[in-house]
Amino acid sequence: MHRPVPKAFGFDVFGTVVDWRGGVIRDVTRFLAEAGHSAIDPAQFADTWRMQYLTAMAAYSASGRGFVTLDILHHEMLEGTLRRFGLNPASLDLQAIRDLNRAWHWLDPWPDAVAGIERLRSRYPVVTLTNGNIEMMLNMARRSGLQWDALLGAEVTRAYKPAPEAYLRTAEILGLAPHNLCLVASHHADLAAARACGLATAFIARPMEFGGAPPPDASEAQDWDWSFNGIDELAEVMASRWHP
Amino acid sequence: MHRPVPKAFGFDVFGTVVDWRGGVIRDVTRFLAEAGHSAIDPAQFADTWRMQYLTAMAAYSASGRGFVTLDILHHEMLEGTLRRFGLNPASLDLQAIRDLNRAWHWLDPWPDAVAGIERLRSRYPVVTLTNGNIEMMLNMARRSGLQWDALLGAEVTRAYKPAPEAYLRTAEILGLAPHNLCLVASHHADLAAARACGLATAFIARPMEFGGAPPPDASEAQDWDWSFNGIDELAEVMASRWHP
Repeated sequence: MHRPVPKAFGFDVFGTVVDWRGGVIRDVTRFLAEAGHSAIDPAQFADTWRMQYLTAMAAYSASGRGFVTLDILHHEMLEGTLRRFGLNPASLDLQAIRDLNRAWHWLDPWPDAVAGIERLRSRYPVVTLTNGNIEMMLNMARRSGLQWDALLGAEVTRAYKPAPEAYLRTAEILGLAPHNLCLVASHHADLAAARACGLATAFIARPMEFGGAPPPDASEAQDWDWSFNGIDELAEVMASRWHP
Repeated sequence: MHRPVPKAFGFDVFGTVVDWRGGVIRDVTRFLAEAGHSAIDPAQFADTWRMQYLTAMAAYSASGRGFVTLDILHHEMLEGTLRRFGLNPASLDLQAIRDLNRAWHWLDPWPDAVAGIERLRSRYPVVTLTNGNIEMMLNMARRSGLQWDALLGAEVTRAYKPAPEAYLRTAEILGLAPHNLCLVASHHADLAAARACGLATAFIARPMEFGGAPPPDASEAQDWDWSFNGIDELAEVMASRWHP
């Protein structure tokens, strides 16, 4: 089947482009050692922190709270995670907690990401479509050599995925009809919400995102417009389909 | 005097980075020829269009109107400009007017801009701090090979320069105290507003911005933190002052 080729690509970042788990485990390990709590498993701590994300997003949407950045939400989730592991945030060094919270700024891309995005960008506009805030995306990109055409997402649209405005406003900002923008993501729930808004969908398999464990949204898999094992494969296929 | 080195640079774009006048004259010339109005001077038309900008910004601020993009404001100013030259927009081809309005998406950088920004970016984060909207900046950058760390400005802050929020929100988004962000601009009025918010200021002389005529804000000149004849000079000085 020949699906229409998108005019631009919007990338989910955490999990799809960068290995959040590896980077967060690295910084959690150091934090726990320095705080004298090396008995806590850093991988379990990282997973607990991340798993609060879905709950926090739902609570955020329901709360009617004004827009706050993911850095702030991450900090709140981190305090919750510390408590879950029996640590009282108030008894710990605040600067150390703040530094740990910035683990999400310094994540490493998957091996295919930098070159894949560079190749895709040689033909198509490629932007972030992330719940991460701009400073986080900027730090991550400068550290790793990732290069985007624009850092779009929650801080620009003032809406967190999977809210429809997160996808629709991004398309509008780019001057595109929704079907001309393709969400690239390793998460079925994100792709499902984008498809419901009329966006094109490209799935990237990231079997190691949860350290080899099955992803929490495995049951939401659909027949996406495209499906790839890496961003290099996506770039290869879109290069062959490109007509200027 | 040794002024503290900024941590990041935010660039005004129209006039500072790209030659809006040359690009707009090019597209106006074609538009007028195709519309059968070659008797109108394209340079005068371009200047009239641009000069409506200051009035339009003031009217926009005073109106309490919700945020609209510069593309939309440009379209309104273009209709006003057509009327000033005795042309009724309703009698002209709407698609041709829309195409002309996008002249602002396809402007050429000044000769020093692409390499200067690339060099500056090798050490410092460099973003747009523009009243232009994201799609406009993205098109301009992809066409000309300009590369930014992020496209910031009115569409992200929801405030048009010279409103203080335009500068202060940009610093906040970048996680910087205002004095660590430097506005780079060829316009004294823009720099004055940034300085009033505590930003650092770098002036770039663009004597040809108005085709050699004096700029409308010449009387607002101050002793800016830095002053250069091009972005290459700025990059050179900041390279020598850099300490990681």
